[in-house]
Amino acid sequence: MDKIKQTIQLDHGGGGLKSWELLQEIRKILDFRGDWKNCEDDGAVFPLTLPSPEGKGELIVFTTDAFIVDPIFFPGGDIGKIAICGTINDLSVMGAKPIGISLSMVIEEGFPQDDFFRILKSINEISHQAGVPVVTGDTKVMEKGKIDKIEITTSGVGLTEKVINNNGMKPGDVIIVSGDLGEHAVALLASRFNYKTEIISDCKPLNKELSEVGKYLNACKDPTRGGLAANLCEMADKSGVKVILDESKLPYKKDVIALSELLGIDIFALASEGRFIASVSSGFVEEVLAVLRKFNNSAKVIGFVESGKGVFLKTELGGLRSIEMPRRKLIPRIC
Amino acid sequence: MDKIKQTIQLDHGGGGLKSWELLQEIRKILDFRGDWKNCEDDGAVFPLTLPSPEGKGELIVFTTDAFIVDPIFFPGGDIGKIAICGTINDLSVMGAKPIGISLSMVIEEGFPQDDFFRILKSINEISHQAGVPVVTGDTKVMEKGKIDKIEITTSGVGLTEKVINNNGMKPGDVIIVSGDLGEHAVALLASRFNYKTEIISDCKPLNKELSEVGKYLNACKDPTRGGLAANLCEMADKSGVKVILDESKLPYKKDVIALSELLGIDIFALASEGRFIASVSSGFVEEVLAVLRKFNNSAKVIGFVESGKGVFLKTELGGLRSIEMPRRKLIPRIC
Repeated sequence: MDKIKQTIQLDHGGGGLKSWELLQEIRKILDFRGDWKNCEDDGAVFPLTLPSPEGKGELIVFTTDAFIVDPIFFPGGDIGKIAICGTINDLSVMGAKPIGISLSMVIEEGFPQDDFFRILKSINEISHQAGVPVVTGDTKVMEKGKIDKIEITTSGVGLTEKVINNNGMKPGDVIIVSGDLGEHAVALLASRFNYKTEIISDCKPLNKELSEVGKYLNACKDPTRGGLAANLCEMADKSGVKVILDESKLPYKKDVIALSELLGIDIFALASEGRFIASVSSGFVEEVLAVLRKFNNSAKVIGFVESGKGVFLKTELGGLRSIEMPRRKLIPRIC
Repeated sequence: MDKIKQTIQLDHGGGGLKSWELLQEIRKILDFRGDWKNCEDDGAVFPLTLPSPEGKGELIVFTTDAFIVDPIFFPGGDIGKIAICGTINDLSVMGAKPIGISLSMVIEEGFPQDDFFRILKSINEISHQAGVPVVTGDTKVMEKGKIDKIEITTSGVGLTEKVINNNGMKPGDVIIVSGDLGEHAVALLASRFNYKTEIISDCKPLNKELSEVGKYLNACKDPTRGGLAANLCEMADKSGVKVILDESKLPYKKDVIALSELLGIDIFALASEGRFIASVSSGFVEEVLAVLRKFNNSAKVIGFVESGKGVFLKTELGGLRSIEMPRRKLIPRIC
């Protein structure tokens, strides 16, 4: 508590260590969970007391995210697309079938209606593409200068019979990514700085591929705020295992690496908005990759899990470099 | 469409006619509803396919609201209390038992941590009092000057076997309020203008009283943005009936009337955050009032429903004055 400064700082919302510390304080205060489980995961899980005809109970998964992306339109997407994809993906990485999305928007007075309707159409396109309806919402307007253009909060409800936890990594598992990472962050930053690049945001809904491979995954997360580093550190820590990444198999395109070096950003902390990282028993790797490559041919194995603690990069020279939960100032308003 | 100006205006978020027009445009674009029902009500309803042991299907109710209250602390509450109460109430007026709340916060860089934790503690107090857990959330931070202090979006999930619709008013019903109205709006405005009054916000969770009386209600809504006028106009229109209010039974305290006259605000449009309006078959009125008065002794009958169209105030001189959906500029950032 005394480590946190007396005011809220940008890093408290960045997805790294400061965010994590603040979250612990929030969880200490909000101490009533009722019958819900997994409240420290991407979504919370509520067991329906009604047994199904086959005797299996069904679980409700519930999640929310606020989106304050800057700029609101960027190569490969916009704030609306990222909001609906983000919520669909939070449900999907937990093994749930997303059944409905809520859409709450806070808009700045004077915001162009053309831009507003363009964002809504983009949300609607993903809603149809993913087969997930937007079912309830709210629209508020703040006075000019009291909010930067538009903020969107989406929540989502999903159903599943079995949750994929983020603490289920097992020694012997391999680590798979569903595609190359970091393109969302780089596209957004390039657009913010008017830097020319071919890279476009990786933002997309993941429910279809996850509905096919979910049953094979021991643990799964999507590397949004804090990127691969935050995901793996959290999953390894919660699972009580060690993760070793192979430097020769890093899931980053050349342009992504070049641009993040130019901007002085740690590639392991780059956010993606349409990718997931999973821990899979070695026996199922081929099945999982075969499915994922139908959606994205850059899906691949990037490392493995063993007994121990921590996340490490095995360099091409054979050394081990520790990968930490991002501590440095993260890029604000990337999602 | 051509009636809406080319930019988003404060009135588009106020809860009156302009909001309603924009909402129609939003709904036209977001045109995929899947299996959800009641998407035009306070929350959307999803039928679980699993039948319960008694053969009754269970329904998920899902709702969301954004809160941009100014000031964030006011007599009788704060932005956190109003957010959790508002979401609990949206589920409750639909006849659902709220099972879990999500909490998404967008905070201005530099916001005092003391204020932040005070808001969280206030949310936690209502969470315990109402017996409704906060189960998932998100925290984002925007640069100083890019958001006014803090914005909170809460979403909620509830379960029920039967939804109370807002279109179920029947000729012969009486209109009941669960207590005097408008105290939230007046307390907030008085505090905004440093005006001294004893009135405090009526903000409170309604799930307990509604769990007792819900089975008797033909229609129900909570008069937040747009107040009694917006509620009754919407319910009467959707139900295809006429509502007559009795001027001698108006549910407003003297101070509320005096202050709204002073500020030139229509009392019928004043927002409450802990009250509901219901349409009840005349045979059940005594049962309903007996329960409601255990919670608030100003619960009372304020009018009745007959065949026809529109909402009218029967004045003490016997005349009929039409009450319209609020069209004038509504007070911004009241909830």
